[in-house]
Amino acid sequence: MRVENESLCFEGRQLVLAHESETLGCTMTLGLFLPPQAKEQPVPVLLFLSGLTCTWENVSTKGFAQQACAQHGIAFLAPDTSPRGDDIADDEAYDLGQGAGFYLDATQAPWKQNFRMRSYIEQELLATLARDGALPLDTTRVGITGHSMGGHGALTCALRDPQRYRSLSAFAPIAAPSQCAWGQKAFNAYLGDDKDAWLPYDACELVKTTAWNKPILVDQGTADAFLEEQLNPHLLEQACCDQGIALTLRRRQGYDHSYNFMTTFMADHVAFHAAQLV
Amino acid sequence: MRVENESLCFEGRQLVLAHESETLGCTMTLGLFLPPQAKEQPVPVLLFLSGLTCTWENVSTKGFAQQACAQHGIAFLAPDTSPRGDDIADDEAYDLGQGAGFYLDATQAPWKQNFRMRSYIEQELLATLARDGALPLDTTRVGITGHSMGGHGALTCALRDPQRYRSLSAFAPIAAPSQCAWGQKAFNAYLGDDKDAWLPYDACELVKTTAWNKPILVDQGTADAFLEEQLNPHLLEQACCDQGIALTLRRRQGYDHSYNFMTTFMADHVAFHAAQLV
Repeated sequence: MRVENESLCFEGRQLVLAHESETLGCTMTLGLFLPPQAKEQPVPVLLFLSGLTCTWENVSTKGFAQQACAQHGIAFLAPDTSPRGDDIADDEAYDLGQGAGFYLDATQAPWKQNFRMRSYIEQELLATLARDGALPLDTTRVGITGHSMGGHGALTCALRDPQRYRSLSAFAPIAAPSQCAWGQKAFNAYLGDDKDAWLPYDACELVKTTAWNKPILVDQGTADAFLEEQLNPHLLEQACCDQGIALTLRRRQGYDHSYNFMTTFMADHVAFHAAQLV
Repeated sequence: MRVENESLCFEGRQLVLAHESETLGCTMTLGLFLPPQAKEQPVPVLLFLSGLTCTWENVSTKGFAQQACAQHGIAFLAPDTSPRGDDIADDEAYDLGQGAGFYLDATQAPWKQNFRMRSYIEQELLATLARDGALPLDTTRVGITGHSMGGHGALTCALRDPQRYRSLSAFAPIAAPSQCAWGQKAFNAYLGDDKDAWLPYDACELVKTTAWNKPILVDQGTADAFLEEQLNPHLLEQACCDQGIALTLRRRQGYDHSYNFMTTFMADHVAFHAAQLV
C-alpha cells in the first residue's frame, strides 16, 4: 500500500492509498480514515461500498463519516467500485463496466479478466491492509455498509459470509437485483443468462439460506427516484420477515437517493456499527 | 431565483438556486441550505465565501455544515467565487479570472466589465434572496465566513461594513493579500498598480480603521502548505492586537489547507455564529 495523500481530519488521519491488485490486475486507489484512537491501538474497520459511477473519493469527501468514526474509534475504508484503467474493459453506459462492478466475479467476456470485485473485497483488500504493519487496523472486527449498488454489495457480502462481518447496514440498497433493470443488465453482462449464477449476488435470495443472525439496518428515502423501479426494499423486508432476520428498514419521509440523504443518517449507521464493533 | 435542485438534508432543504445577476452580467448559481426551523419562521443566514477554484458546490457538498446549521437553525448560503461563462474574461491560471474573483470590484480591462464580486455580495445577493418571498430568510441577521480566498472575502466584507454583518469568522484566510503572491497578482490585474486602490481589500489595512467591535474567530492549520507564503495570519493577529480587536486565532496543530481541516472545525464556526445570530 502506497500513501498517495495524508491529511489530518477530526484529529484522525484521512489517507488515500493505492496498491497493485493481483485480483483485479490494475492499480486500485482507496480512502482510509484512521480515527485518533488508532494512535494507541488497532481499531475496527467499517467497510463502505459505494454506488454506481463513484470512486473511493465520493464518500471519503462527501460522506460526513469522519466525525462519527473519530468519536467511536472506527476506521472508515472506502474502496473503488470496479477495476480501472485504459486497458480495462468498459462500456459507455454509467451502469456497466468501470464504476459499475456490482461486487461480483464476472464469468463472461470481456469482463471476466478483471471484473472480480467480489474476490477483491473478500480476499484481497483487508488482507493487504492487514499485512501492512503501518496500519493499526483490527481486521478481525469488520462491519460493512454501502449505498445503492454498494448497499447491494454490503448485503450480499455479509449474507454470504456471516463470520467475516460483525455488523451490516445499507443506504438505499439495490435489494433484489435479479428483479430490477440495473441488476438484470449487469448480471446478464457479467454472469450470463443462467439465473442460478445470479443467486450469490441477490440479497433476497441469500436471505433464504444465510446463517446471518445479527440485526441489519437499512435506511431508504421515500422520495428516492429509483425506489420503485430499482431498489425494492419491500422485497428484502418480506424475505427477512419470512426468515426471522431482524431487519430494521427505516423509510425516511421525503429523502432522495443523493448524498444529502446519506449524510443525514451516516452518524446513525456509524453508531449502529460501533455498538457491534467497539 | 430559480430552484435548480432541491433535496432533503438533516430535515432541512438543500437548494441549488440560479439567477441572472445584473451586477456580474451572467447567470450565477448558488447553494442554500434551509434548516428545518425555516418551516416555522425566517432564519438567520451564514454566508460562506469559497476559495480559489471553487464553485458553490464544494462547500455545499463537502463542507459538513448542514448538520450544525440544522441544529442551530441557520441558513447556509454558498455563492460562486466569480462570474462564469464562455463570454466572461478568464485566464489559464487557477488564481486569476473565473474561480478567482477575490471578492472585489475590478477596475482594469478586461476584468472590470464582469468581475464585480464585491458589489454582488454586498448589494445584490442577499437583496435578491430577500425579495424572493418563497425563501424564509431573515437577512437582517447575517454572519459571514469563508475559506482561504473566501476567508479574505469574509474578513474584508465585514471589516468594511460592520453594520451589515453580525458575526465574522474565517478558515485559513489570505489575511494580508497586499503582502503575498496570490493577492499581489490578483490586485495588480484587477485593480492596477496604485496600491491605494488595494486598501479596501486587505484585512490588515482595514483593521486600522474599521468600526468592527465584535469577536472574530480564525482557524489556521499549522501544516498548511500556503501558510508561510500566502496566508500570513500573524500579520492579522498583530494588526488586531494593535487596534484592540478581539481576534481569536487558533493554530491547529498538523492540519493542512484542505476540506479535511475545514470540516473538522465547521461545527465550531457555525456555533460561534449561532451565538450571535440566533
